[in-house]
Amino acid sequence: MKTDALARVILDRCDELAALSSEPGFLRRVHLSPEHAAANELVGRWMTESGLSTWQDAAGNQCGRIEGREPGLPALLLGSHIDTVPNAGRYDGMLGVLLAIAVAGRIEPGTLPFALEVVAFSDEEGTRFGTALLGSRAVAGSWDDEWWNLIDDDGITLFEAFQDFGLDPARLPGAVRRPEELIGYLEVHIEQGPALEDAGRELGVVTSIAAARRFELSMLGKAGHAGGTPFERRQDALVGASELIVEIERLSRARGVIGTVGRLEVFPGGVNVIPGRVDFSLDLRAEFDDDRDEAFRIIADAGKSIAERRRLDFHSREFYRADAVVCDLDLRAAFEAGIRATGDGEPMALWSRAGHDGVAIVAITPIAMLFLRCRGGVSHHPDEAVTVHDVAAALTAFEAAVRALAAA
Amino acid sequence: MKTDALARVILDRCDELAALSSEPGFLRRVHLSPEHAAANELVGRWMTESGLSTWQDAAGNQCGRIEGREPGLPALLLGSHIDTVPNAGRYDGMLGVLLAIAVAGRIEPGTLPFALEVVAFSDEEGTRFGTALLGSRAVAGSWDDEWWNLIDDDGITLFEAFQDFGLDPARLPGAVRRPEELIGYLEVHIEQGPALEDAGRELGVVTSIAAARRFELSMLGKAGHAGGTPFERRQDALVGASELIVEIERLSRARGVIGTVGRLEVFPGGVNVIPGRVDFSLDLRAEFDDDRDEAFRIIADAGKSIAERRRLDFHSREFYRADAVVCDLDLRAAFEAGIRATGDGEPMALWSRAGHDGVAIVAITPIAMLFLRCRGGVSHHPDEAVTVHDVAAALTAFEAAVRALAAA
Repeated sequence: MKTDALARVILDRCDELAALSSEPGFLRRVHLSPEHAAANELVGRWMTESGLSTWQDAAGNQCGRIEGREPGLPALLLGSHIDTVPNAGRYDGMLGVLLAIAVAGRIEPGTLPFALEVVAFSDEEGTRFGTALLGSRAVAGSWDDEWWNLIDDDGITLFEAFQDFGLDPARLPGAVRRPEELIGYLEVHIEQGPALEDAGRELGVVTSIAAARRFELSMLGKAGHAGGTPFERRQDALVGASELIVEIERLSRARGVIGTVGRLEVFPGGVNVIPGRVDFSLDLRAEFDDDRDEAFRIIADAGKSIAERRRLDFHSREFYRADAVVCDLDLRAAFEAGIRATGDGEPMALWSRAGHDGVAIVAITPIAMLFLRCRGGVSHHPDEAVTVHDVAAALTAFEAAVRALAAA
Repeated sequence: MKTDALARVILDRCDELAALSSEPGFLRRVHLSPEHAAANELVGRWMTESGLSTWQDAAGNQCGRIEGREPGLPALLLGSHIDTVPNAGRYDGMLGVLLAIAVAGRIEPGTLPFALEVVAFSDEEGTRFGTALLGSRAVAGSWDDEWWNLIDDDGITLFEAFQDFGLDPARLPGAVRRPEELIGYLEVHIEQGPALEDAGRELGVVTSIAAARRFELSMLGKAGHAGGTPFERRQDALVGASELIVEIERLSRARGVIGTVGRLEVFPGGVNVIPGRVDFSLDLRAEFDDDRDEAFRIIADAGKSIAERRRLDFHSREFYRADAVVCDLDLRAAFEAGIRATGDGEPMALWSRAGHDGVAIVAITPIAMLFLRCRGGVSHHPDEAVTVHDVAAALTAFEAAVRALAAA
């Protein structure tokens, strides 16, 4: 199939996957949900149609493989994830999986000096259990047994969710891949930012993946009646949290890091009750670990100082940490060769502000990423959009990168 | 009986009423419940012992009356309510009813130039059916027939609850009092705030009952990926809402009104997603309607200006409005005379931040209220507390106010 036609098939498949949602009218597909099972089945069928042998691993990742010149060679792993945030777009993750399947489908089995594997990771976003990269961490062998007790909004533990999905938690180690089984991991992903669009470029090669930390922050005050409690007696947790949220934005901009409060809950939540407690998240990203850590120290100090002034208590609990991950130079060179093959000129380099499955996978094999321009830099939103032209370019570059590694 | 001894009896009766609860260990006594029936019976017995003729009206309000110099004179109405919030204290409402009975018991029948009536309103809090002041609205003739379809948590309609209580909904108009039957309404209530305690005063006379409005506010931005969307492209609804929440506090304090944001929801609510929409409540109270309305205009302008600067949309929708009720000057003067009679010096004036039965009753007769100091300003909580000393002072002031009106 010609590249443009195949790009259109890929976009149609993105639409088909987007229909597998737990919410009518918008896309939400979380880890180990019935929609996840349906997505694995659909992706598995497309893998089969592209000539891959397929399996679902012990962590719910959907996998496929074509052998190289002889069976059992170490594999080049291509992939991305198929879970989504709430009210998601249809390209974040899925497009990378479908491009990987399309590339594998263009490779004649038995011709490469390595096997080719495609993986659709089960959980990258962490939407359901709050902890991200559960799929890739299972593969990388960096699973933490405490995660079994993570609880979703319905009170279901990760352990129970595994069982409900038909997986046996005791068999999780079966998902682990050893370094000697792999030669590298390549992922194509929408940029999730406007840098390529602003530069008028279709594709870009990623230098590193952001250093990130995530925290659960709490402001604790005292609930009281909105009418009866004068301002000087109030210990309003929400006004305190609000001050800090404004300050997080100001400090982040000033320091060139990225700080986002995406989730916030107010207790008890009555219209006429002064909030006694606010729990809110902080997502912090930076190009370098030190910048990230220094920004958090300053934000935490601001939280404590606001709390002290308002007679509140401020607490923070880290629940996610990923140090900056540097992409492998040889794999980057392969993607650069791929970009040149599209005729888009000298490859543009950029760092990823977002975390990706490679953050976990780098523990067992070198990684690299190719970014694809997305409209307006929008992601994690139904307005996510890519062009057929750019998907075709990504397909060309991805295939060329694999062939460049085979020729190396 | 001496005033201090009678104050002790009143507090004992508060304890006795507090035992009539639907929840073991907590006080919860709602409109038309079996506990309400038991409370009416107990209050009726105390009324009878104090020399009042008694009846339960067509709305379940427990009433009592002693005649003035001749039978059938218009009545001065004294009272409060005997329903409670969930997990209530034992003084909000009940104390005012028991003080009214005690005052009536100290008046020789046939001596005043008006009749004296005591009422224990059946529903002020609105705990069971969500709509407050059902007892006093029935008396004031401001009943809305749509309320018959209100449903409690067990799916029982107000209509059915009336029947279960032994009342005939068709006879409700029999509860209505005409203006010519009444000369005024006096209520004693705990302050539900710390102003008297802070000022070291036992009692205070109420100038007005708060003007209130409630709004659902929304900030609408655009969800986006926390990593990929640079600050200059963000339309973060939560940072915008947070700025406004801080500003609501600042503006409220500066203008002497009470603005509270008690409820807030963030959408989509992902840790790594820039909030695209925030819905939050605003409860606004002021001594005067104009202050309240002017404060809202300024808050709404602040919301619009923050939204404009941040490329957000700001919306507001009013869902509750109660204009300020001004207490009658002559009745206030009677309470002021009552406070002077206690030897507590020049009466302190304050406005009620909470709503009361007078908000309904003012439609048919002038009203006034006396506030009694409560510990720490706490109400709607088991920690509600008053002293025997203050209850005795309230009793003295209440009786003196009635006698002052008789002498006028």
